Amino acid sequence: MTATLLTNIGELTTNIAADGDPCGTIRDAAVLIEGTRIAWVGAAADVETLGLGRITYFGAHVARPGGRSAPQTPDDGGIAPRTREERGTEIVDAGGRAVIPGFVDSHTHLVFGGDRADEFEARMSGTPYAAGGIRRTVAATRATSDVDLRRRLAGFVAETRSQGTTTLEIKTGYGLTVADEERLARLAAEVTPEVTFLGAHLVPAEYTDRRDEYVDLVCGPMLDACAPHARWIDVFCETGAFTPDETRRILAAGIARGLEARVHGNQLGPGEGARIAAALGAASVDHCTYLDDADVAALASSGTVATLLPGVEFSTRQPYPDARTLLDAGVTVAIASDCNPGSSFTSSMPLMIALAVREMRMTPAEAVWAATAGGARALRRDDIGTLAPGMRADLVLLDAPTRVHLAYRPGVPLVRSVWKDGALA
Amino acid sequence: MTATLLTNIGELTTNIAADGDPCGTIRDAAVLIEGTRIAWVGAAADVETLGLGRITYFGAHVARPGGRSAPQTPDDGGIAPRTREERGTEIVDAGGRAVIPGFVDSHTHLVFGGDRADEFEARMSGTPYAAGGIRRTVAATRATSDVDLRRRLAGFVAETRSQGTTTLEIKTGYGLTVADEERLARLAAEVTPEVTFLGAHLVPAEYTDRRDEYVDLVCGPMLDACAPHARWIDVFCETGAFTPDETRRILAAGIARGLEARVHGNQLGPGEGARIAAALGAASVDHCTYLDDADVAALASSGTVATLLPGVEFSTRQPYPDARTLLDAGVTVAIASDCNPGSSFTSSMPLMIALAVREMRMTPAEAVWAATAGGARALRRDDIGTLAPGMRADLVLLDAPTRVHLAYRPGVPLVRSVWKDGALA
Repeated sequence: MTATLLTNIGELTTNIAADGDPCGTIRDAAVLIEGTRIAWVGAAADVETLGLGRITYFGAHVARPGGRSAPQTPDDGGIAPRTREERGTEIVDAGGRAVIPGFVDSHTHLVFGGDRADEFEARMSGTPYAAGGIRRTVAATRATSDVDLRRRLAGFVAETRSQGTTTLEIKTGYGLTVADEERLARLAAEVTPEVTFLGAHLVPAEYTDRRDEYVDLVCGPMLDACAPHARWIDVFCETGAFTPDETRRILAAGIARGLEARVHGNQLGPGEGARIAAALGAASVDHCTYLDDADVAALASSGTVATLLPGVEFSTRQPYPDARTLLDAGVTVAIASDCNPGSSFTSSMPLMIALAVREMRMTPAEAVWAATAGGARALRRDDIGTLAPGMRADLVLLDAPTRVHLAYRPGVPLVRSVWKDGALA
Repeated sequence: MTATLLTNIGELTTNIAADGDPCGTIRDAAVLIEGTRIAWVGAAADVETLGLGRITYFGAHVARPGGRSAPQTPDDGGIAPRTREERGTEIVDAGGRAVIPGFVDSHTHLVFGGDRADEFEARMSGTPYAAGGIRRTVAATRATSDVDLRRRLAGFVAETRSQGTTTLEIKTGYGLTVADEERLARLAAEVTPEVTFLGAHLVPAEYTDRRDEYVDLVCGPMLDACAPHARWIDVFCETGAFTPDETRRILAAGIARGLEARVHGNQLGPGEGARIAAALGAASVDHCTYLDDADVAALASSGTVATLLPGVEFSTRQPYPDARTLLDAGVTVAIASDCNPGSSFTSSMPLMIALAVREMRMTPAEAVWAATAGGARALRRDDIGTLAPGMRADLVLLDAPTRVHLAYRPGVPLVRSVWKDGALA
């Protein structure tokens, strides 16, 4: 079993709440990784108690994303992480930099064909956002082979990993036939255990006048085909997509089939999505721009996570959700990218943090928590999102002294190294 | 002399206006680089007319930033740029991707000590932005050695280069003594010819009650010490910084000493900055949030560029400038990062493009032009910002099929390879 000691961490975000700090911040910290898990977290000064032997730094190599080593160069600013082997433990000197848990992006739509750059360009010039644009991606996805979808998906996974995302949820929803939804679920399951069946993304064009038949299909053969590959069932509960009654029916069918519920709700206007999610004990309701006091109270009392997706508001010029009201009411808030070709073609969790701070008035600490521990809650995962003994060793070394820099330095690629299940990605 | 042929470019932005397209877009294009300059630009189908011999692609290697080669992997999405040697010309197959001119970031403050993450965090929690925060960076910069400033600066230059910036302007302004301003100008001149003397950034604390003496110092000994290292003189003309009369006096002194003028103006409220810049024939007036009709008319008739810095508005929650009014009036618009530790600690020109589109309603084409050719105009450079024979070979291969993706995919690191003066950076 390989072991890695990250030490000289200037600021470690553990997300193990302590002394009123939900981020469980430890300064001058160290983390010991053994195999795929975290073995120890504490003060760097206490490393000697681990019995790793005397640690001497004399190397001049830096750990870089991709596992490459390169000679120390002036651009390292004098705080290059040095690595060397010491009694079988690889030592990584973080050089005073910050370490955070890997990002948990709990809402993406990454299996699709084509793009909609032209639609984006038109919308930015004043054409309103039309949900029907989803149908263009459905057509493009149906026309894309498994081989090509798999290659595109691998590219997106690599893109997210390089930006610090260590856990991804991926939804189906651009197939909308039994065969196409099945292959999207199957392809997604090749890269993540967090697969969501979203046959109820939109009523496809060929069922426009027979929507009950489409709901029957989703609840029957399509669910049967997708359930073996999926953990979650989701419905886009919105005017123009699925009604509250349809939403309840589809979620119930999924739950009966052993899936767990999550909901797209309250994105484009008020509606029952959040209350349906809370009543069913869904893990998360996502978007949450249009919530009333009763919706917020229902989320707070149910424990259903409110997942906010500020990339959508950025890319569609819609109003941002009111994160402060949710946080002040005690609702658990996650942030995610919603990466999809229509309304938010970004996979950047650092940008989601910057937008949460700039546009939703979350503090940098709240935003980083929401992008890590919050995402883990939204996926009901107790093995990720926090850094403590026994947890998966999913963590990110930033090219910055504090996590605040993720909001303070928007757009700058600050993810220096990523460990996923203990391995340098 | 080395030669590189970039071919199979899906969309080439030349910025040589043609047929009503200011971006001079060529589809299925190729660019030939010889030495540090561009030798030829045209349709990929016309490459054979160049006499490079028969070109056959059979390699399976990709050009990556940093000049490294790596085996083709699935994350390349099947459109990996292949390279091989052919009669002394290196062939780079762009795989249908987009190529644009390198970004020209015409407004940065990259020589400084410390950071102000705490001030950012406080401001995002509701504390108003105070220009006086500059004084903290002045104190930190004065306390930082040349060696450390040089190392930090090299790090920032590398950070900008990895994001596609091939030309940087850098201002002094965090020294505010003769000796400190001189060393900032000297250090900046080590990395760019576009050095701006900004002794008139703020009246330093020690001159608070003797501001006339400080203006004398700026116009006399400080200018004398900095002018040998600088091309430009700049003044922060704003309530709380320098008055219109002081601005005119300092700019006149700089011009008399052989420097060219640029102005910080109309950032925090209405003022004379833009009109002073226009009257003096300054290259650029930067910020331009508070302009009246007369200001806009003055800029349009003078040819002074309006440089917009949306990173500042993003990071300070100030209103964004009205780019559309400027563009519609025929003013030349540039966008730049204003990278500095107080009001905009981002060096990301791609994010500036996304913000220009989202927040200032520029089209993606206008924003890309403003970040490349616009920056070149703001620096009065006719050797950069466009891709044509004889121009410097400063260009960027995007991991995207079109330049629109820079706005469509905010936060995603889309810069795949960067050539600066013909060399892969």
